Amino acid sequence: MLHTPTGLPFDDIHSLSSDMLGPDTAAVKVVREREVQLMKPAGLFGRMEEIVEWLAAWHGAERPNITRPLVAIFAGNHGVTDQKIAPFPREVTHQMVANFAAGGAAINQICIAYDLGLKVFELALDMPTGDITLEYAMDEKTCAATMAYGMEAVVGGIDLLAIGDMGIGNTTIAAAIMHGLFGGEARDWVGPGTGMYAAGVAHKAEVIARAVERNAGSLKDPLEVLRRLGGREIAAMAGAILAGRMQRVPVIVDGYVATSAVAVLYAMDPSALDHCLFGHVSAEPVHRCALEMMGKRPLLDLGMRLGEGTGAAMAMGIVKAAARTHDGMATFADAGVSDNG
Amino acid sequence: MLHTPTGLPFDDIHSLSSDMLGPDTAAVKVVREREVQLMKPAGLFGRMEEIVEWLAAWHGAERPNITRPLVAIFAGNHGVTDQKIAPFPREVTHQMVANFAAGGAAINQICIAYDLGLKVFELALDMPTGDITLEYAMDEKTCAATMAYGMEAVVGGIDLLAIGDMGIGNTTIAAAIMHGLFGGEARDWVGPGTGMYAAGVAHKAEVIARAVERNAGSLKDPLEVLRRLGGREIAAMAGAILAGRMQRVPVIVDGYVATSAVAVLYAMDPSALDHCLFGHVSAEPVHRCALEMMGKRPLLDLGMRLGEGTGAAMAMGIVKAAARTHDGMATFADAGVSDNG
Repeated sequence: MLHTPTGLPFDDIHSLSSDMLGPDTAAVKVVREREVQLMKPAGLFGRMEEIVEWLAAWHGAERPNITRPLVAIFAGNHGVTDQKIAPFPREVTHQMVANFAAGGAAINQICIAYDLGLKVFELALDMPTGDITLEYAMDEKTCAATMAYGMEAVVGGIDLLAIGDMGIGNTTIAAAIMHGLFGGEARDWVGPGTGMYAAGVAHKAEVIARAVERNAGSLKDPLEVLRRLGGREIAAMAGAILAGRMQRVPVIVDGYVATSAVAVLYAMDPSALDHCLFGHVSAEPVHRCALEMMGKRPLLDLGMRLGEGTGAAMAMGIVKAAARTHDGMATFADAGVSDNG
Repeated sequence: MLHTPTGLPFDDIHSLSSDMLGPDTAAVKVVREREVQLMKPAGLFGRMEEIVEWLAAWHGAERPNITRPLVAIFAGNHGVTDQKIAPFPREVTHQMVANFAAGGAAINQICIAYDLGLKVFELALDMPTGDITLEYAMDEKTCAATMAYGMEAVVGGIDLLAIGDMGIGNTTIAAAIMHGLFGGEARDWVGPGTGMYAAGVAHKAEVIARAVERNAGSLKDPLEVLRRLGGREIAAMAGAILAGRMQRVPVIVDGYVATSAVAVLYAMDPSALDHCLFGHVSAEPVHRCALEMMGKRPLLDLGMRLGEGTGAAMAMGIVKAAARTHDGMATFADAGVSDNG
């Protein structure tokens, strides 16, 4: 938990995010020097090479490796589901968390396929956040405490973190945050979510517009947007991303909901997500727009929009392979092979 | 090897490719039925779901799994390198094959990362094919025998095959094949290859134009294109793809050179590549055009253009995860969870 002399949690978070570690450019230089010696023409490995440089920059390691990758799923419930913006009842969040524990979800199988750790952060599922059309989602203390709890995802010597979400109704919450942070019209930020029809989408946009409207004038501080319009899982993800930065653990972001957590930090400081890789672009059309707005290129585009960290975990498989390739390849000198000549 | 009463090898291959196995639609139906019962809203797993259906169709299996995936690299040398179309000397092909054996190449590391088998088919490296600006690359018998040799990639109970190439000068050969098969201008089919400059690209296009021109009028049969303009590794890859079809082993195709082998079969019969998945789109701009022309969507777009099967092997990691996810997930009934209501 966060304690400072001021006793104001949001101040603590603001000061954390204004004093962030930068990339280790010396380590990146070493990676680049090795890259051109590897037994292949330099540059031909495309984003695989960029990924290794990114790992080096944030690990602060000249020969980055991934030995303890973790997928963290943050699960929360939302009062706004009272507005009938989701086609599933709130208890499905509980049931899916039970399914993660039982090993029956998509993310369990992907974690087995790529040998990734998996941890579920269950965020007071029996206490949904306030219905944002009627009240604040959270008070400041709850929001800051939830962010601090999310920071605990970065423990145990993990060297790569993927963040994903589970929470019935949370694409509505994500859209409300994006609208609250970046303006525009509510409908600009609304995707179909999980199984919503056209009429449902219009209703969702209307609910979001109402929620943002009632907070108009108080949305300058991105942390205010988060606590007024957000959800516990989104606050926790924002905390996890900050903790990754502080502890040199790069973060792979999943779909639209996880992106809304990153967006809160981006709105505070665009460099706050330099240590983040967007694992995939979701089939939610608004996700692509959000990434473009933040100037980020996703790694995968597989038409997925399942959440649970599945897109980020798929990308983790690629990041692991990229690191192994750079680390394990022979150099021209090792192999006594003709270099470009 | 191929034997038939006619004694004409290309006739054999034509008859193989005119009598190809189709997809197992009953198996696909079973996969679709299970898909909607899995503990996630149906359709939200995007291309992962398509991949499982594709595996079912070509395995003929209701619950497809990948237990023996193989990456096959086909290596050949080319007389056309006498025309100085490549920035590396021909012996680099030998050296890279030695590097594959020693475990020092990029593809070795990717295979370790995803637990894939790796086999290198070395195709008479000391006997480069004819310089296509002056003579035929191969005679008919050599071409057919090389295709038959390539068919041996599909043995030993493998259940997924990725095909890749190694061969100094073979992007020139691939471009000549594409130009020979599909017309247009030579420069339409020329990419920079591995480390070529603008002047080099123009020279490459001129070499290809000359090679195709001297065969004008004899390019109606795609197998004639292959033997006149092709390379041994490309003929062997075409054979491997055919064998995959006959033995219900789906094939993941790597970059531009592997695509030129597929294109030979496509020109004979567009359905010949229904059992093929294009693992990635290479950073060679012409690769994207070739895939669009054949109506195929690549799985990955990582800016890679290294060859060696690296793009196909990266895709194999995803295909393995897709199969495992479908197979291992719980159904709503398993978990007693509320379905969409």
